[in-house]
Amino acid sequence: MKNILVIGLGSMGYGIAKSLIRSGYKVFGQDKNPVQEKKIVEDGVFVKDIPYTNLDAVIIVVLNENQTKEIIFGSNGIAGKLKKNTLIMVCTTVSPNFAKEMESNCKNKDLLYLDAPISGGAKKSSEGKLSYMLSGNKDALNAARPILDATSETVFEFGEVVGAGSAMKAVNQMLAGVHIAAMAEAITFGITQGIEPKRFLEVISKCAGTSWMLENRAPHIIDDDYSPKSSINIWPKDLGIVLDIAKNSNFSAPLTNAALQQFISATEFGLGHEDDAAVAKVYAHKAGIDLPQK
Amino acid sequence: MKNILVIGLGSMGYGIAKSLIRSGYKVFGQDKNPVQEKKIVEDGVFVKDIPYTNLDAVIIVVLNENQTKEIIFGSNGIAGKLKKNTLIMVCTTVSPNFAKEMESNCKNKDLLYLDAPISGGAKKSSEGKLSYMLSGNKDALNAARPILDATSETVFEFGEVVGAGSAMKAVNQMLAGVHIAAMAEAITFGITQGIEPKRFLEVISKCAGTSWMLENRAPHIIDDDYSPKSSINIWPKDLGIVLDIAKNSNFSAPLTNAALQQFISATEFGLGHEDDAAVAKVYAHKAGIDLPQK
Repeated sequence: MKNILVIGLGSMGYGIAKSLIRSGYKVFGQDKNPVQEKKIVEDGVFVKDIPYTNLDAVIIVVLNENQTKEIIFGSNGIAGKLKKNTLIMVCTTVSPNFAKEMESNCKNKDLLYLDAPISGGAKKSSEGKLSYMLSGNKDALNAARPILDATSETVFEFGEVVGAGSAMKAVNQMLAGVHIAAMAEAITFGITQGIEPKRFLEVISKCAGTSWMLENRAPHIIDDDYSPKSSINIWPKDLGIVLDIAKNSNFSAPLTNAALQQFISATEFGLGHEDDAAVAKVYAHKAGIDLPQK
Repeated sequence: MKNILVIGLGSMGYGIAKSLIRSGYKVFGQDKNPVQEKKIVEDGVFVKDIPYTNLDAVIIVVLNENQTKEIIFGSNGIAGKLKKNTLIMVCTTVSPNFAKEMESNCKNKDLLYLDAPISGGAKKSSEGKLSYMLSGNKDALNAARPILDATSETVFEFGEVVGAGSAMKAVNQMLAGVHIAAMAEAITFGITQGIEPKRFLEVISKCAGTSWMLENRAPHIIDDDYSPKSSINIWPKDLGIVLDIAKNSNFSAPLTNAALQQFISATEFGLGHEDDAAVAKVYAHKAGIDLPQK
């Protein structure tokens, strides 16, 4: 049995930890939120006496680059505790340049680094059916294989140059964020024209205007259910990363920027912890219309 | 056998005319472009000696509101030539208010009016598999039934108040236009990060970032094929209509506006008659990158 530490037990990390337990691993977990740690202990994850020198892999699934860097190279970071050739698999959404920097620093400490952003959402994570977008050298990839088998449905490989996986993730997030905001713009525009959200979904899902995000998120609005499957707060962060990368490439991304502004407005409205479909509330408020209510 | 006149023999009208011939109708056609008229004569459509007083229906599938109004109520308009209770079925993308005005004027001339915008593209049109978004009174709808049977796969009905069909079409066009521009933004952003367009499509079509338009249009970019299935020129017009309707409802639509600007840039680049996937050329030019070449 192999020992794996999962750092970050939010909806994605929690699902990864549970999938690993199902596959027979001994799984350790860490989260800055003690409530999350307590919850996952009941699922069989160990949160005390983490055997750093006996870990085979550390999976990091936290909010952003700063947290990721602190976890690996902070004053109490894992880089100083792990044995040689331990795999560090970073699933956090980060910029390609950040991933390159982390890999280089890990190499100096004789640690393996895998750029491993994920896609699929909380449900797929808990079912062990994530999609991975991987880049990293062969040793890192080989070390990760059993973990990938236990937690994924689809694995996309982008070669040995770290950062390519994160680049693909950025492209996907760009589209996903724009499509959520576009759905919100269209469903509320429809309301101003007398089209009920339920009818909107029924018709558009059969027309050229449909998207994966539209079919996934519009039901949250129709059901007046903004419990966070994926929260508004994800988007200022992820679209911010996308636009940082774009800026560094002198790339102008006006739709992404327009979508970002709508998510920022949503956080200003105090909706940060609601489901990201709540960006429709920004449109509804501005237009003076009502969204469906339970 | 019934006599039907189709006005506007672009890719959509052409397909409607051919579908009607297949179903046994005697079809007359009109287009301001003699080349289109000549072409369709070979398919069995009559373009001379149009028997206005013996027509059962006129289907109008032209570019915009002005053309539609001129055809019906211009100095040589059909309203003065048709017999009582002839059906006028308008498939042009128009604003709900324009549709209401046309219906009211048609009623004064004892003509039936059906608000009948379409969706589906050239291929579906020629196969008789369009989607219709209908609004109009029962007499107009009943008169249109055999035409709908001959030309459609899906019929959405939005009640007797004319304009509701056009409102739904506007919502669909809003999403479709934004999704095409978003695809262009993401595929070119991907190129700046070293992701080849072919790989982009392969990965994104299996991820949460996908859309109907992305899967339909990205192959045009990958194949370097900008022969117009649906042209850039459609979008400044259609998104312009959407934003006019939005403005009249005090509705702010920032993503739609951002997409519109990209399509306007494309026309400024002289790409108006290319396939709408050519909006990617605007992004590529600004970013100084190359799109795939044959």
